[in-house]
Amino acid sequence: MERGRSRRTSLAAPRLTGRLEQRWELPNGVRLIAHQIPSAYSVTLGIWVVGGSCDEEPAYNGTAHMLEHLLAGSSQRHTARQLALAFERLGTEVNAYTTKELTCYHAQTLPDRLPRVLQLLTEQLFSPRLSQRLLARERRVITEELLAYADDPEELLYEHAERLLFENHPLGMPIAGTPESVQRITLGVLQDFHRRFYVGERIVVTLVGNLPPEEALRAAAAVFADIPRQHCQLPARVPPQPQRAREETLCRPFQQASLLIARLLPRLSAPERTALAILNFVLGEGWGSRLYQRLRERHGLVYNITSELEWYSTCGVWSISASTSPGTLPRVEELIFEELRHLSNGGIRPEEFERGRAFLHARLAMALDSPAECMTLLARAALEQEPTPLPELLELQLSQLSRDTVDMLAALYCQPGDWSRVRLLPSNDA
Amino acid sequence: MERGRSRRTSLAAPRLTGRLEQRWELPNGVRLIAHQIPSAYSVTLGIWVVGGSCDEEPAYNGTAHMLEHLLAGSSQRHTARQLALAFERLGTEVNAYTTKELTCYHAQTLPDRLPRVLQLLTEQLFSPRLSQRLLARERRVITEELLAYADDPEELLYEHAERLLFENHPLGMPIAGTPESVQRITLGVLQDFHRRFYVGERIVVTLVGNLPPEEALRAAAAVFADIPRQHCQLPARVPPQPQRAREETLCRPFQQASLLIARLLPRLSAPERTALAILNFVLGEGWGSRLYQRLRERHGLVYNITSELEWYSTCGVWSISASTSPGTLPRVEELIFEELRHLSNGGIRPEEFERGRAFLHARLAMALDSPAECMTLLARAALEQEPTPLPELLELQLSQLSRDTVDMLAALYCQPGDWSRVRLLPSNDA
Repeated sequence: MERGRSRRTSLAAPRLTGRLEQRWELPNGVRLIAHQIPSAYSVTLGIWVVGGSCDEEPAYNGTAHMLEHLLAGSSQRHTARQLALAFERLGTEVNAYTTKELTCYHAQTLPDRLPRVLQLLTEQLFSPRLSQRLLARERRVITEELLAYADDPEELLYEHAERLLFENHPLGMPIAGTPESVQRITLGVLQDFHRRFYVGERIVVTLVGNLPPEEALRAAAAVFADIPRQHCQLPARVPPQPQRAREETLCRPFQQASLLIARLLPRLSAPERTALAILNFVLGEGWGSRLYQRLRERHGLVYNITSELEWYSTCGVWSISASTSPGTLPRVEELIFEELRHLSNGGIRPEEFERGRAFLHARLAMALDSPAECMTLLARAALEQEPTPLPELLELQLSQLSRDTVDMLAALYCQPGDWSRVRLLPSNDA
Repeated sequence: MERGRSRRTSLAAPRLTGRLEQRWELPNGVRLIAHQIPSAYSVTLGIWVVGGSCDEEPAYNGTAHMLEHLLAGSSQRHTARQLALAFERLGTEVNAYTTKELTCYHAQTLPDRLPRVLQLLTEQLFSPRLSQRLLARERRVITEELLAYADDPEELLYEHAERLLFENHPLGMPIAGTPESVQRITLGVLQDFHRRFYVGERIVVTLVGNLPPEEALRAAAAVFADIPRQHCQLPARVPPQPQRAREETLCRPFQQASLLIARLLPRLSAPERTALAILNFVLGEGWGSRLYQRLRERHGLVYNITSELEWYSTCGVWSISASTSPGTLPRVEELIFEELRHLSNGGIRPEEFERGRAFLHARLAMALDSPAECMTLLARAALEQEPTPLPELLELQLSQLSRDTVDMLAALYCQPGDWSRVRLLPSNDA
């Protein structure tokens, strides 16, 4: 690529203007974060509740997700239809999702409508309408959702891999529950979860967009000030026990075969997580990664291959997945493990280390240009008690990182024998 | 919702600062559009080629898509690996996709790297490396891609619906081709497509982000000035013949049953397309829509239902799709057609009209806050020879629209008998 360099024309450095951020904590523990993007048209907001499927009783797995469905749908004062129409009249997009550890309600609207949108959202979340009729309907809706997941190879693989990795630990439960557990969830179970988790100390609100931070914070404080505090101690989340690597083979009538391999990670420090992000990038994240170059560019075995890190409050999961024709699955599996072995034995090259640092730094800046991603990154940082994710800070952190740290992590976590495997084979005789 | 209004606190109107836009046409016909978002960190760019699957010979269906794969992968001067590493070192995300009428190569990077990124991208697109070895590999990759689509209920439904609607018209061909046509595509076919479609007059470049428009345009002009002009007249695209409504039932071993109904639309004027967007919104787009309220909120029959409009240069397609348990598919189908009949006979209510106008206006503003969506909206407007999509302009256009126009379109296009249906049933004995 050297030839091009001399022709590189010169452009001024980025002129970033006017981004401001403020954090605020209300007396009831609600944490508010506002970040201004002056040239945006809109405001994007997230209400994050620290409560997800890992906080459920196994018998009632799916409670957090069903509660999210029911709260996002109506309130004591308004029916689902009234709320949906009100948000649309306000030109507001609303949605919600549940993860293993969090529930997020998010919206995008125009700045002058923010107070009314916040009012409606807090009404939904803290003055819920929970009735037998709505519960019965939502059980049907979620049953359809679960059926759709069963038709999705990726969903199937992840669900089974999580069961292998976490065994009976709460993180192993599927977020939406099972067809059986969803039928068991009663109004009492939902109300109990709501009472314990929808409390000030467990709520983070992020507001990103075209509003001065003080103004956004004032609007949020007006509606979040009355949220109740926590009244009982919740059990602390405990890390999962490391399991030895295991294998599972599923048979389903799909055309392609798929593979997901995964391993547990301990909860690492922030610098170690950054080092592992470089390792993951080099291994299988981008088009320049070892796995993409070898499996797709050299051998044409796959349309895509992904490698990703997922961090929880007590641990992490590293996973790699690919789909291919049934006949070539063994070869794909062999090549993936070969690349893991190379990393584990030899670490990464200086060029890979530099490339990973350059890419991670730029990627954070690019992510912050998406209001939804910016809102999410701010919330995650607040929930992890970490500083604001700024490209400048990450650059500093990356400059202090050594390749030895990355190689040490490769030696620790890339040993093929430590990875569990789930295969999905296209056959009917499961 | 009235009660809340009096409590609505007052916020200043949006203070939008510093968005600027410029358009420029080079002597060879390349159109450049730059739009500044001063508080962004990055620049997002799209290179749009007016050439897609509808421009292919049926025997070689999949040519545009395969060419996109091959061009995005390498260049005469650099291998796929060299390019992938170069983009990553530049902290740049690149990707590409093909539609029935367009091919889009897009990237996001930091402003100071734009000239080098443009240089590499134009090298890929206009000095391609096409070899038998790369062709053979890409055939394998695309064969895997097609297999993955066959495992996706939604992809299956759309492919079959398009065949029903368009019959032998070029828009009916699947974008990625078929397993057979992909094997037939030769280097000569690819080179011929490249020679005819990758020419100045058929290229639009959009640049959105943190750069003054003149600077972005200068950087783009430096690399696009040498692109060849068109040297032969290409056949004009002709609109499809309207077909009478037809039905097809597919059987595949999925758990859920799915339904997609669709109809062709003539190429409407811009105000009529806006009126139809309101009708589509009212019918089935948002949570407040008639279909969502009835099928999900009232009956709990589906997890989701979508209604969407897709516009081509010669026509449009309106489609509605939903998945449900096999036993309830007839009921879902019945309710969807009942709602179509209501619209066709009675039009929309004043409240729905106002809500649709308010939502469409806000949604455009919100979409422009996503760099990728902003880049795409600008390109589409330029390709359609329409003015820049600005919320202020849309608001004006919406204010000039009458509900009668919407009702007239409902009477014309919502008649149940004009819609084709594709059902996907979960059975093995297809």
